[in-house]
Amino acid sequence: MIRERVDTGHTSYDIVIGTGLLARTGAFLQELNVKAASRHLIITDTNVQAAGHLAPVLSSLEAAGYRADVFVIPAGEASKRLALAEEAFEFAYEKGLDRHSVVLALGGGVVGDFAGFVAAAYMRGINFVQLPTTMLAQDSAVGGKVAVNLSRAKNIIGAFHQPLAVLYDIETLHTLPLRERRGGYAEAIKHGIIRDAEFFDWMKTHTAAILQNDPAVLPELLARSCRIKAEVVSADEREQGLRAILNFGHTLGHAVETLAGYGRLGHGEAVAIGMVAAARLSVRLGYCSAETAAEVEAMVELAGLPTRIPNNLDTDELISSMQKDKKATGGTLTFVLLRRIGEVEIVKEVPPEQVREVIAATREG
Amino acid sequence: MIRERVDTGHTSYDIVIGTGLLARTGAFLQELNVKAASRHLIITDTNVQAAGHLAPVLSSLEAAGYRADVFVIPAGEASKRLALAEEAFEFAYEKGLDRHSVVLALGGGVVGDFAGFVAAAYMRGINFVQLPTTMLAQDSAVGGKVAVNLSRAKNIIGAFHQPLAVLYDIETLHTLPLRERRGGYAEAIKHGIIRDAEFFDWMKTHTAAILQNDPAVLPELLARSCRIKAEVVSADEREQGLRAILNFGHTLGHAVETLAGYGRLGHGEAVAIGMVAAARLSVRLGYCSAETAAEVEAMVELAGLPTRIPNNLDTDELISSMQKDKKATGGTLTFVLLRRIGEVEIVKEVPPEQVREVIAATREG
Repeated sequence: MIRERVDTGHTSYDIVIGTGLLARTGAFLQELNVKAASRHLIITDTNVQAAGHLAPVLSSLEAAGYRADVFVIPAGEASKRLALAEEAFEFAYEKGLDRHSVVLALGGGVVGDFAGFVAAAYMRGINFVQLPTTMLAQDSAVGGKVAVNLSRAKNIIGAFHQPLAVLYDIETLHTLPLRERRGGYAEAIKHGIIRDAEFFDWMKTHTAAILQNDPAVLPELLARSCRIKAEVVSADEREQGLRAILNFGHTLGHAVETLAGYGRLGHGEAVAIGMVAAARLSVRLGYCSAETAAEVEAMVELAGLPTRIPNNLDTDELISSMQKDKKATGGTLTFVLLRRIGEVEIVKEVPPEQVREVIAATREG
Repeated sequence: MIRERVDTGHTSYDIVIGTGLLARTGAFLQELNVKAASRHLIITDTNVQAAGHLAPVLSSLEAAGYRADVFVIPAGEASKRLALAEEAFEFAYEKGLDRHSVVLALGGGVVGDFAGFVAAAYMRGINFVQLPTTMLAQDSAVGGKVAVNLSRAKNIIGAFHQPLAVLYDIETLHTLPLRERRGGYAEAIKHGIIRDAEFFDWMKTHTAAILQNDPAVLPELLARSCRIKAEVVSADEREQGLRAILNFGHTLGHAVETLAGYGRLGHGEAVAIGMVAAARLSVRLGYCSAETAAEVEAMVELAGLPTRIPNNLDTDELISSMQKDKKATGGTLTFVLLRRIGEVEIVKEVPPEQVREVIAATREG
């Protein structure tokens, strides 16, 4: 079991990585001084429930004397909408949840974002504990960003709401299809690229083992990945400066994901494409060598992730979607560009025509 | 023009009270370094628009070089719902609002809560400026509590989100009906009761002038009232302790307001009834003398506010509603009780049977 402490400046919490953690959820809540007098709420999705992860959590809560209700959302990004959040609020209220109640987010990134948003807004903010069942969820659990989507844009409605703790039971990874595990891996690759060349090299050597869920390498991968994110987030809780480097690959990635239609391309897949494009843009604008960009692309390929923008996505719409991104200001384009592996730079007012040319050059063959 | 500074610990802002302020909104935004490159959003309601308050704000923004869109909600508490907030988010996104955009909340308490919630959640929080047009709105503008309602409970979905500034143009009060002005006055009376006997006495002498909107007394009333609230809020931004004293009259008041049906009784009217009941409960539980409770009741009457619980509201439902209040824990009742004028105490686990008897004794004749 590995514990990483995240310190956000005005709060701090533990990320616990290990096996058999779900069956010990109740004991962790006791350690966190969660009150047994209040009712609590588990939010999960249909896939996670079907994979059998809900049962051990429920028994462990019961064994520890906690009363918890369960709100199950349909699996998939389409659940991240305000109308469903309202159902969760009504449910929580009818069940009598109060300010000392805790929301447990059991699932992937969608559940984490959704449940975190419910916890952030219910009674102006109650505590929540993340029980991520995917690498993407573990990654997004670090940083306190929670949100639901608008019909045409991701994560526009949300909050910064730090969890009370993150309990990451890596056994849950075994129930995930390979494609999803590849997607989760994309964020770890990103962390190497933006901040740690040594970690990037380590991943190059261990990719095969990682994608096979090798218990000899997985905890190290996850701990190193979340340590990098925690470092960046701790330095900049509310995304004023440094934290923006985490958006490497996300400027175009978000646009690709949105326009493909939620669910067509996974978040990690879209980010993989976005990283390839961002690296190529970095070469074009003179920030890094063609060799460095090639290293990024080779790593993305090694992970079995896509490197090309689907041809059915219109360039104008991609540009316009990026201009409306939360990170954009006054319609200009901001990119995280690559200097070398391990070092990136935030570049504002990138000329749209340069982005267009990179998009054209990064299309499917 | 009076300026009061509110310091919440990690942020601070000015409340400006005076005449002709709406027509100077643009200049204030410049002073606050609001960017002209981004689009901004005025949220207001049909009544405020009909009263003519939108036009001076729009012209002043335009004169200062700002581009602003307007989102008008139907007047009334029923607008404080998530589905309408979602329309506002979609509107803001379609208009291209970004992280540097500012939401201007032009209106009463409903507009302030609603627009504040939109600002708090849009892109995980953008700035907002309050332009209150009622005393209630000015009161609720101090403290950063924003929210929308669930179908059966007020303010369950929300955030703590401090405004960038509050500009209170007291000329807007002239367009308000007397009943609403009385309602707004209830919170000022509450501030005297919980914190400042001298202010309470001053109000006794000046009630007639206040209800006539006398410009010789109004600025002093508002400044003193908001100073008390700012003091309490500054000491306790996230409502962990002291701030709970602001709920004097609100435990029962919220329940009365909710069960009467939003709109039947104004918030201030419900709080007035709640203050009378809380004072009586204080006598019953030995916290204060009958004379003190009588002083509270006399003041509420002097202000022309209701003092009795409507007979159509069921006692069991009132109790159950209070047990589900955000301030309740594990279903027990917490009240702010009166020691003497100017001093209150937070009392947890008040026996429901005592509350029942006070409810019975505080019914309409």
